[in-house]
Amino acid sequence: MVKVGIIGAAGYTGVELLRLLATRPDVSLEVVTSRELRGTAVATMFPSLRGHIDLKFVAPDAAELGQCDVVFFATPHGVAMHTVPDLLEQGVRIVDLSADFRLQDVAVWERWYNTTHHCPELIKEAVYGLPEVNRQQIKGARLVAAPGCYPTAVQLGFLPLLEAGLVDTDYLIADAKSGVSGAGRKASVDFLMAEANESLKAYAVSGHRHGPEIEQGLNRYSEQPVNLTFMPHLTPMIRGIFATLYAPVKSGNEVNVDQLQELYQQRYKDEPFVDVLPQGIHPATRNVKGANYCQISVNYLPQNGRIVVLSVIDNLVKGASGQAIQNMNIMLGIDESTGLDSIALIP
Amino acid sequence: MVKVGIIGAAGYTGVELLRLLATRPDVSLEVVTSRELRGTAVATMFPSLRGHIDLKFVAPDAAELGQCDVVFFATPHGVAMHTVPDLLEQGVRIVDLSADFRLQDVAVWERWYNTTHHCPELIKEAVYGLPEVNRQQIKGARLVAAPGCYPTAVQLGFLPLLEAGLVDTDYLIADAKSGVSGAGRKASVDFLMAEANESLKAYAVSGHRHGPEIEQGLNRYSEQPVNLTFMPHLTPMIRGIFATLYAPVKSGNEVNVDQLQELYQQRYKDEPFVDVLPQGIHPATRNVKGANYCQISVNYLPQNGRIVVLSVIDNLVKGASGQAIQNMNIMLGIDESTGLDSIALIP
Amino acid sequence: MVKVGIIGAAGYTGVELLRLLATRPDVSLEVVTSRELRGTAVATMFPSLRGHIDLKFVAPDAAELGQCDVVFFATPHGVAMHTVPDLLEQGVRIVDLSADFRLQDVAVWERWYNTTHHCPELIKEAVYGLPEVNRQQIKGARLVAAPGCYPTAVQLGFLPLLEAGLVDTDYLIADAKSGVSGAGRKASVDFLMAEANESLKAYAVSGHRHGPEIEQGLNRYSEQPVNLTFMPHLTPMIRGIFATLYAPVKSGNEVNVDQLQELYQQRYKDEPFVDVLPQGIHPATRNVKGANYCQISVNYLPQNGRIVVLSVIDNLVKGASGQAIQNMNIMLGIDESTGLDSIALIP
Amino acid sequence: MVKVGIIGAAGYTGVELLRLLATRPDVSLEVVTSRELRGTAVATMFPSLRGHIDLKFVAPDAAELGQCDVVFFATPHGVAMHTVPDLLEQGVRIVDLSADFRLQDVAVWERWYNTTHHCPELIKEAVYGLPEVNRQQIKGARLVAAPGCYPTAVQLGFLPLLEAGLVDTDYLIADAKSGVSGAGRKASVDFLMAEANESLKAYAVSGHRHGPEIEQGLNRYSEQPVNLTFMPHLTPMIRGIFATLYAPVKSGNEVNVDQLQELYQQRYKDEPFVDVLPQGIHPATRNVKGANYCQISVNYLPQNGRIVVLSVIDNLVKGASGQAIQNMNIMLGIDESTGLDSIALIP
Repeated sequence: MVKVGIIGAAGYTGVELLRLLATRPDVSLEVVTSRELRGTAVATMFPSLRGHIDLKFVAPDAAELGQCDVVFFATPHGVAMHTVPDLLEQGVRIVDLSADFRLQDVAVWERWYNTTHHCPELIKEAVYGLPEVNRQQIKGARLVAAPGCYPTAVQLGFLPLLEAGLVDTDYLIADAKSGVSGAGRKASVDFLMAEANESLKAYAVSGHRHGPEIEQGLNRYSEQPVNLTFMPHLTPMIRGIFATLYAPVKSGNEVNVDQLQELYQQRYKDEPFVDVLPQGIHPATRNVKGANYCQISVNYLPQNGRIVVLSVIDNLVKGASGQAIQNMNIMLGIDESTGLDSIALIP
Repeated sequence: MVKVGIIGAAGYTGVELLRLLATRPDVSLEVVTSRELRGTAVATMFPSLRGHIDLKFVAPDAAELGQCDVVFFATPHGVAMHTVPDLLEQGVRIVDLSADFRLQDVAVWERWYNTTHHCPELIKEAVYGLPEVNRQQIKGARLVAAPGCYPTAVQLGFLPLLEAGLVDTDYLIADAKSGVSGAGRKASVDFLMAEANESLKAYAVSGHRHGPEIEQGLNRYSEQPVNLTFMPHLTPMIRGIFATLYAPVKSGNEVNVDQLQELYQQRYKDEPFVDVLPQGIHPATRNVKGANYCQISVNYLPQNGRIVVLSVIDNLVKGASGQAIQNMNIMLGIDESTGLDSIALIP
Repeated sequence: MVKVGIIGAAGYTGVELLRLLATRPDVSLEVVTSRELRGTAVATMFPSLRGHIDLKFVAPDAAELGQCDVVFFATPHGVAMHTVPDLLEQGVRIVDLSADFRLQDVAVWERWYNTTHHCPELIKEAVYGLPEVNRQQIKGARLVAAPGCYPTAVQLGFLPLLEAGLVDTDYLIADAKSGVSGAGRKASVDFLMAEANESLKAYAVSGHRHGPEIEQGLNRYSEQPVNLTFMPHLTPMIRGIFATLYAPVKSGNEVNVDQLQELYQQRYKDEPFVDVLPQGIHPATRNVKGANYCQISVNYLPQNGRIVVLSVIDNLVKGASGQAIQNMNIMLGIDESTGLDSIALIP
Repeated sequence: MVKVGIIGAAGYTGVELLRLLATRPDVSLEVVTSRELRGTAVATMFPSLRGHIDLKFVAPDAAELGQCDVVFFATPHGVAMHTVPDLLEQGVRIVDLSADFRLQDVAVWERWYNTTHHCPELIKEAVYGLPEVNRQQIKGARLVAAPGCYPTAVQLGFLPLLEAGLVDTDYLIADAKSGVSGAGRKASVDFLMAEANESLKAYAVSGHRHGPEIEQGLNRYSEQPVNLTFMPHLTPMIRGIFATLYAPVKSGNEVNVDQLQELYQQRYKDEPFVDVLPQGIHPATRNVKGANYCQISVNYLPQNGRIVVLSVIDNLVKGASGQAIQNMNIMLGIDESTGLDSIALIP
């Protein structure tokens, strides 16, 4: 029985962890924290969990959390870094869904998150929790930094192209569209339904915090540094990320669609949660709603020599809580797909 | 040229007043206030108004407002009552979109709004701004209390039945469904799109502030006091109120559908903004989206002797800002439909 | 291993059966039929099922279906009645999600469905598949008529009140609001997103086919025949039914809220899928989205002696496919909750 | 009084023409056609038009249409080309909202629309109705081909950059997101609300009919032929197009944001319906919902030398019916903004 704690359990990624873990017979939820809601029963706050979870929210307490095998941080950035060192010392394994340990270059992190990092010495140890890239390192890890939602969709989409050196990395575009749950469960005018529904906009146009995280990954997979334009958009749906990725074929390279299809299928043939769609089937976010899959379609436009990759995930599942659990499974040597095989809710 | 001021112009009813007034050649917007946004250009805050409104939000100032012919209060309850007496003394006409002057019984008001009324002496003078009932009184009024959104839809739906004494007033039901803009433009978790979309719920189940307002009206139109159950629901759309009204035919009365249809058509035949639908056409909220109409369908169920009235409005137009302007037009002797003839946005 | 066939598997209730059954280790999907899509791989049509279902749609074939232990009809009315007799003879158990066997009075059925019934002799044998009422009869049944979506929500909501004889059955109102998936997956202008989103309407105002089904149930639970007004509404969400039920307390009866709460809790205390909410918590459809629960809140309005019950389900789960599987589990002596314990998708 | 006919008036662009024209005192709607709905009152079909339009749909009749000053074709492609020659001969001016006369190269048209063109001799005469480019030619035109929705947003966004020769035209990307009303008002499974809401997808990935139309325009504005990747997406909202346009600065060019801002403001300074947003304000589709504006934001990313232009319109207004009326106004010498000054519906 894996004893689990969740810090920041009242936000959307926290509640999604609860949803995904509550029915697992091999997991025991021990501590779920929310400073704001402490004392309130989880199932009172979230009646969808009635009959499934019998705990109350508590304030985070190091001793209590220290009894857990695994602790998830479903917190805003800047929280985990203060508690992680203590928990690691108590032998707890950590999956951090926030950004605190995602960037290896602490200076970049501090610039984008506008904070001094509290434990830069742990950054090196932290493993970036993209199983499709780092499965071996995750196995032995004490501290996993679960990737952001956009970075998951964009990296999985570009990865095979960059590893194969097929595209001109000077002209990469990632036009990404997100549902509103990515903004989290906090009082705000901008994400009121009357503001966000029936509208669409780009945001963080001059630069988004997920940009450097994506570039860190792409530069690792590519022989040459990439010039990436990453543009996030807010779209009127609750869940889902749709990333449209554009790359020109590298000059001098011959490319055809069969070769691309084969490249993607080979790269992901052993991946339980990356589904390369056959030619002629294109993804839609609803096909992964509530599920841990990334569905990818690779397309070649012969008329102008461009490759267009379409990559979709549920931002709260493969883009956050599902992937975090996938990491936990790997860390603990549990079958990687345990508790993650549910099917998308359609319609 | 009518000089107009709007207090609380950054909320949804305020912005809707701006939308409806900005293109009128006979109206000059003089002062638009918002404490929070003072100093910000209106069109910076609401880019839909670029090119149409060149003002900045200012803090409310009695002297400046005193220069206006009409001042609209698009504020939460409890604000207007503090400023209205002063403005009236300066000769300004007031249309209050808030609840401060809607209830004639100050004790009832104070109980429901949990506040001491600041100028109870003005309540008697205030005219309840439902033109279909009080047109003559509105003409001479200095102070009009514009009805709430639910009360507009429910009263217009029940009115002919009660005036005609056709139904058993002991068993009235008003099941009302509202879009989320009714909650206003303020930071809140409950009205986040991720919370409110793809869901439906009743709220204020034990009693809603619009209940006594509706009862005050119905009791006035009816010979006997009514027993009304009013139940509001939050539905996943931005604009619109749909009121489904149930009443049993009074014992001993014979009713048929032609008679009911005739009753409604007669009652509203001179009303520019109440549209009695013919038998066989039922209303949908989208048919009045952005428009000042109330569409009503009256139905008789011969199998069980029940009358069902369907009444729809746009909560921000006929349920708030459009009706407020209709009141202003009447108060000032302008043609009542001026600036209110635009057609619903479909699809 | 239970061998299962699904007829009409390409509609929404069919796909929902697939979603709920595909991950069950004790169920083997043998035949999924769709005349229109025969020859197409299920997972090509519904990419959310990739990796989970490896079948192709076939045309219905009696011999093949005869090999199944259970066959679900997820068809429009008028289909099942032609095939059921043959399958029963081959020893197949039937769960019919359509209306063919729901009404015990064949004349009423024929009037509402405007068709001659093909096997009226089986109507008597058919068990109405509302487990909360008919669990014992379902156990031995060969043929179960799964209830409609509205009838499930409305009957479960009114049931304890009627059994207890607490309310005046002359004045029952069921104001019901449904998501658009209730209309099924078929080409139509009325249910285009551009028509149905951002709008709300009543429909079937003069009478809906679920009316007689609901009345049949309520009359059975009640000592006196009921006078019910049932009014369905189309609301802009994909899944969910919200039923708001109104009843006056029977003259002479004393009622208080504790007694009502106790009544409902007692009635449903052994029901795995009916969740009586405590006072102060009211249901929202999203709390059961994708889950097999009916959440019910009973409220007493002391100011006017009315009882208001709020009852919510997911129309495709407890209102259709989930309840159908619950029936299958009971028929076969499998634990009733098997495969039905997943938690609602929030947000 | 301008006598107007509308062919195909029951589709979304047809109804939008009705909405925009019905309240104009200088326009008389003479003939509105719909083969399917002939004999039905327009206001019965579209109750939002009750009190505004008193016509019935009729079948198209050349003689009747010949009495009009202007006829709009709001038809699918392949219809207008059969009737236009006859109407032109009768002296009627034509604004064709369909694709029949948009492409100057008839071979390209025939390939993309898979039809033989019926009157290729008129293609040369037809003026492409983008007033920001062709205002002078529109003035004298008998036949105007109103641009498609995507082409309007994309061309207006790229135009100043291409005219100025600032960008490397080998790497243009137009990632465009549309609301569902773009698909028209016709029975279809793909655009059911249960299919299209809460989801997002790319479509026509290998090539969309608006691609050659856009390229025709961009090649005209640019000194060098463009290599454009145009990718349309379907998003869960009713109205709106959001085009995100990417271009690298031409090698050797120095660019800064002030210069770009100035370039766009200069280019569009006399355009009544193109609104160049100041730096720091980015567009959202809701800001033009129901209005004839194109709002554009030009952005420079110094970190990687890329220009990103954001261009939004309402697909049914500036992307179709509003622009068609703007063309009519210009053709007839009426003030260009007449009837087009209404403000977007927010929220």
